[in-house]
Amino acid sequence: SVPFEPSDHPHRRYNPLLQEWVLVSPHRAKRPWQGQQDEPDQSVLPAYDESCYLCPGNTRINGEVNPAYEGTFVFTNDFAALQPDTPDSASSDPLFRYESEQGCSRVICFSPDHSKTLPLLTDEERVGVVKCWMAQTAELGKSYQWVQVFENKGAMMGCSNPHPHGQVWAQRHLPTQATKKLASFAKYYQQHQRALLLDYAEREIALNERVVCSNEDWLVVVPYWAAWPFETLLLPRFSVSSLADLSDSQARNLATIVGEITSKYDNLFNTSFPYSMGWHSEPCDGQEHPEWGLHAHFFPPLLRSASVRKFMVGYEMMAEAQRDLTPEQAAQRLQALSTTHYKKAGQ
Amino acid sequence: SVPFEPSDHPHRRYNPLLQEWVLVSPHRAKRPWQGQQDEPDQSVLPAYDESCYLCPGNTRINGEVNPAYEGTFVFTNDFAALQPDTPDSASSDPLFRYESEQGCSRVICFSPDHSKTLPLLTDEERVGVVKCWMAQTAELGKSYQWVQVFENKGAMMGCSNPHPHGQVWAQRHLPTQATKKLASFAKYYQQHQRALLLDYAEREIALNERVVCSNEDWLVVVPYWAAWPFETLLLPRFSVSSLADLSDSQARNLATIVGEITSKYDNLFNTSFPYSMGWHSEPCDGQEHPEWGLHAHFFPPLLRSASVRKFMVGYEMMAEAQRDLTPEQAAQRLQALSTTHYKKAGQ
Ligand SMILES: O=P(O)(O)O[C@H]1O[C@H](CO)[C@@H](O)[C@H](O)[C@H]1O
Ligand SMILES: O=P(O)(O)O[C@H]1O[C@H](CO)[C@@H](O)[C@H](O)[C@H]1O
Repeated sequence: SVPFEPSDHPHRRYNPLLQEWVLVSPHRAKRPWQGQQDEPDQSVLPAYDESCYLCPGNTRINGEVNPAYEGTFVFTNDFAALQPDTPDSASSDPLFRYESEQGCSRVICFSPDHSKTLPLLTDEERVGVVKCWMAQTAELGKSYQWVQVFENKGAMMGCSNPHPHGQVWAQRHLPTQATKKLASFAKYYQQHQRALLLDYAEREIALNERVVCSNEDWLVVVPYWAAWPFETLLLPRFSVSSLADLSDSQARNLATIVGEITSKYDNLFNTSFPYSMGWHSEPCDGQEHPEWGLHAHFFPPLLRSASVRKFMVGYEMMAEAQRDLTPEQAAQRLQALSTTHYKKAGQ
Repeated sequence: SVPFEPSDHPHRRYNPLLQEWVLVSPHRAKRPWQGQQDEPDQSVLPAYDESCYLCPGNTRINGEVNPAYEGTFVFTNDFAALQPDTPDSASSDPLFRYESEQGCSRVICFSPDHSKTLPLLTDEERVGVVKCWMAQTAELGKSYQWVQVFENKGAMMGCSNPHPHGQVWAQRHLPTQATKKLASFAKYYQQHQRALLLDYAEREIALNERVVCSNEDWLVVVPYWAAWPFETLLLPRFSVSSLADLSDSQARNLATIVGEITSKYDNLFNTSFPYSMGWHSEPCDGQEHPEWGLHAHFFPPLLRSASVRKFMVGYEMMAEAQRDLTPEQAAQRLQALSTTHYKKAGQ
């Protein structure tokens, strides 16, 4: 009988962060496919758009006027999903359980320039974005247990405004994903007296099969349990639990690697690569969390070209996530790409 | 201070099936919105399409020819994500854990008529679909622990062929969602000596706040913990754990209510409503599962019109699901709609 071959045979991989499995069906990537090669998207947006509600000096829907900001600019979401003054209330009925929630939702503009994206900013400008993420995490962590920094990029990911921006939502209770991770990290720490993600980063560096790029302080891998085709995990190579605790040089090296992975993403299909990305710093519950490792996820939907995406639907919604190429194949493709953005390459 | 009002204030609701929370932000639905009313989609597809790989008599990509089928037609997916003969293999390394998987993936054509969808079939034809789901569940349950019947409908849900069809994937191991539900149902049964979903169905009927439609045997509700805007849960009003165990009259009443909920969905925005739906019958592990209640989920993405969808992205991927209108509001809208399909109404 043939031996098991992970690049040929269907198998399930275990995500130790969420304690969930992913079905890997590598032979599906062998489906006939007219290997569409997208023309480079060289579209140029204006640096200022008078109809954009994020550009400096423009009036937002609630009548507020954006300042003539120069670096990053943070404001409270005009239609915030979370609000600070929700009255307390809860029910513990096992079938109709709820609790009211307090929090806030802010928008983070990365740059006044409407035409930029994270990889098209200068290193200096990206350092400004990293420092803004750090400051928001530190500030909101004083009032709320969970601070969720994230970016939805591209229309495919529900972002209707191309102006470079992300968001930060903070809330009183730990959300579902955070609760799961806290339990996983605690379990591993109890068994190994080490932070799970620190062990994982070391082993990925040693194996060097799924590493996309790295520097002195940071590492990007396609995780062994990646669900999205080109999903990556951005990890520190040192012990740290929160964005709020980075040193100046760690922040600078982070800005560099964020530029590298987002440039590689754009270079993969010669397009402004859509994704949702987000940071998981430790819960701000007044406890020490040596078990928690700071990390960021990039969840990009594209599979085969600038227009062909992976759908996480039927089977995935009802049973478990499923992927068509192996994480190792995805990592090799991303690793081989230049860190110079295709729009900058000709310059 | 104002009292807590679930239709105004952000709160979290608990999904007792998955033991996860959903953030409900009802005031977000008050965002300015040019209440787009879609023109009824009256497009007519041909009953036979020579380029469709599911139509009777056509040749599929692997050279096989579809028979001149008249009711339902089931065949093995030409690019199956699961295969019966995968060699056994596994590793229990906590950070690089995997197991090989055996299974099969089949396509279920609902009708030879390319132009139909579930709500446009006759009651008799829909009974044929229900009986096909039942037979597949019974047959594949003999070889595999999990049988996943599902349908992806509409391009928005990754379905590129409008020919009416669903799928069934069966596999050796319990997938993630099934494992979670088994644990939740077992916990509730231990505490209450009753099946969770049977209790839930009774309480929803008594409350009558989230019921969309019902008949002697079946009930459709927008569950208290719904994540998607118009998500519904289809439940039996009697004790049953698997599609394989339905009586003839229960199957007929099921075909009727499937016609009703899918007609209501199409009538909501005058369009062929996209969704993923799927059945959860008990695990086929040779054990009795009195704690398990048979049920189906409908997960539809549309939010405001035939073209405006909800995106489960950034915050939802990183933290937890979030919704903008309450389940009660969604249920009221669906409840008020006719069960006669808008394309049949004029006839
Ligand atoms: O099997 P299909 O219809 O080609 O593919 C569709 O359903 C599958 C099962 O939910 C998904 O894995 C695919 O991403 C989706 O496009
Ligand atoms: O806040 P935005 O950009 O209007 O909205 C976007 O991000 C939110 C947070 O991930 C999601 O809830 C919305 O569905 C999405 O369209």
